[in-house]
Amino acid sequence: MEFELLILGTSSALPAHGRFPSCYALQLEDRSYLFDCGEGAQIRMSDFGVSPQRIHQIFISHLHGDHFFGLPGVITSQALLGRTAPLSIFGPPELEKLMRPLVTQKDTDLPFELRFESIDPLGDKRLIFEDDRVEIGCFPLQHRVPTMGFWVKEKAVALNILPEAIQKYGLSVEQIKSIKKGEDLTLADGSWIANQKLTLPPFRTRTFVYCTDTRIQWELAELFHQPDLLLHETTFTEEFAQRANETGHATAAQAAELAKRMQAGKLITGHYSSRFRDLQPVLEEALSIYPDTWLGEEGGRYRVLRTRVGEPPAFERTLSP
Amino acid sequence: MEFELLILGTSSALPAHGRFPSCYALQLEDRSYLFDCGEGAQIRMSDFGVSPQRIHQIFISHLHGDHFFGLPGVITSQALLGRTAPLSIFGPPELEKLMRPLVTQKDTDLPFELRFESIDPLGDKRLIFEDDRVEIGCFPLQHRVPTMGFWVKEKAVALNILPEAIQKYGLSVEQIKSIKKGEDLTLADGSWIANQKLTLPPFRTRTFVYCTDTRIQWELAELFHQPDLLLHETTFTEEFAQRANETGHATAAQAAELAKRMQAGKLITGHYSSRFRDLQPVLEEALSIYPDTWLGEEGGRYRVLRTRVGEPPAFERTLSP
Repeated sequence: MEFELLILGTSSALPAHGRFPSCYALQLEDRSYLFDCGEGAQIRMSDFGVSPQRIHQIFISHLHGDHFFGLPGVITSQALLGRTAPLSIFGPPELEKLMRPLVTQKDTDLPFELRFESIDPLGDKRLIFEDDRVEIGCFPLQHRVPTMGFWVKEKAVALNILPEAIQKYGLSVEQIKSIKKGEDLTLADGSWIANQKLTLPPFRTRTFVYCTDTRIQWELAELFHQPDLLLHETTFTEEFAQRANETGHATAAQAAELAKRMQAGKLITGHYSSRFRDLQPVLEEALSIYPDTWLGEEGGRYRVLRTRVGEPPAFERTLSP
Repeated sequence: MEFELLILGTSSALPAHGRFPSCYALQLEDRSYLFDCGEGAQIRMSDFGVSPQRIHQIFISHLHGDHFFGLPGVITSQALLGRTAPLSIFGPPELEKLMRPLVTQKDTDLPFELRFESIDPLGDKRLIFEDDRVEIGCFPLQHRVPTMGFWVKEKAVALNILPEAIQKYGLSVEQIKSIKKGEDLTLADGSWIANQKLTLPPFRTRTFVYCTDTRIQWELAELFHQPDLLLHETTFTEEFAQRANETGHATAAQAAELAKRMQAGKLITGHYSSRFRDLQPVLEEALSIYPDTWLGEEGGRYRVLRTRVGEPPAFERTLSP
């Protein structure tokens, strides 16, 4: 299964230099989980070929406009596209009150259920959503208004049985089912075969951690160990460290140091100040501390490949032409 | 003085093919009057080099999202840019209730006065705003929700006195002032000189008429005679005439026929359905009826040049590279 972060918007508060406000889609095959939804999100989806129909959950980190002003467009355009599947939006408690009047004027009544799930951004790290593919949770960040980060953990999938084991033991459908779930095999003669001898090693369950907007929080290294992808805001470079601290943002060097402490598979940068036309200084600052850094770019697709336990994690990216 | 329509968004409800929702800036030198403000308006301003600071009035035709979902971004970004000058938004009565909570959350209190001017879209043609350069008014359109069009009429400027007249009659400062206003000259000996003999012909006062979204309304030809620029929606071509009528929109042929009846200087098309990737069919349909048609394109600048009464109107356009 594909596990891909598609970046739709990397700008901080002021869109500039062709960059759009925050929006990130984590894609697992035909499903997209959207993290933040800045103005123009639906335009970026159109630009990069993401059908809004594949989004069923949207997670809003906080109520600054550059993180949620794209919601009304994403919601109402889906009505025009004939959506019928429910759409859930997880975000701070005030979000529903701000959004619902905008998207449910009489003429544009929605042909699908729109659910707002009110989340307290200041609560402890916890699970807020799960389906058959992922668990998604939140944790508190430190910004000028209540803000949360999000984590995503892929669920384990059924094990692959070794073809020779099926033949050797003449496995029944029932036995195959239980082995795929990880159970050991007990034969008719009472002898016992460990699951590992019957199956290929399981797939690694991949993880994504999303931190924007926030002042640097070193204690996150205690919450997350070796996430595959860490999207951390890098609004500024060290030259503007004081401004970063005052405005509740992080520098590229800080994000890289945090990635190092977490031993992240890849740090992906983002949420760039409009003062940076060229992002090379941001990337270079992060790379000097953490070589496993990728510059977050709009239209970029950042993948964690499917590997098995015992194999090293593998990554791949495709940038927009 | 420059009189230029800069197009920022030409898409109808669904943004597609790189086209943004409705947004049009009429620019008179250092002032921009904004007509509609679809999602991404501030991004388009950044793309095409329009400082939001030069906008003091925004006119919203109706409350479909593709015409006003860009307002929160335009408003809050100006706070970040340090705006202090008041900003007035003219639109249907419900607009303020939808917008103000979004843009005045505690953390983002605005450092400038934000005025909402409530306008009944269904009222008769009338004046709703004037400053020293223009009069701006509204008139009712026919769409699925209450919708208005807007008209702009440039105000007359001071006349230019013929240099030889100043010498010949030894004009005083007071006399010059009154002649510039259009008054005749009475000399000390009681003789009388007509203003036209003392001045160059006045500049033509230029006009702009904005009609979107609307079913075709032939009676507009009675309201407007020879507008310089007529921006009329052309959501569909004739092939989809029935759909146009059902959804409260117009075809390119209809808009062209209306432009012909009005004797518009230039018809400019816009508000294109996402079904048209290529806009050539829209343009060709309009051109076949009204040769003075320009295809409305994002980043395009459509100018009415300054000419004097008695000279033919002159137009010029520059498209985005």
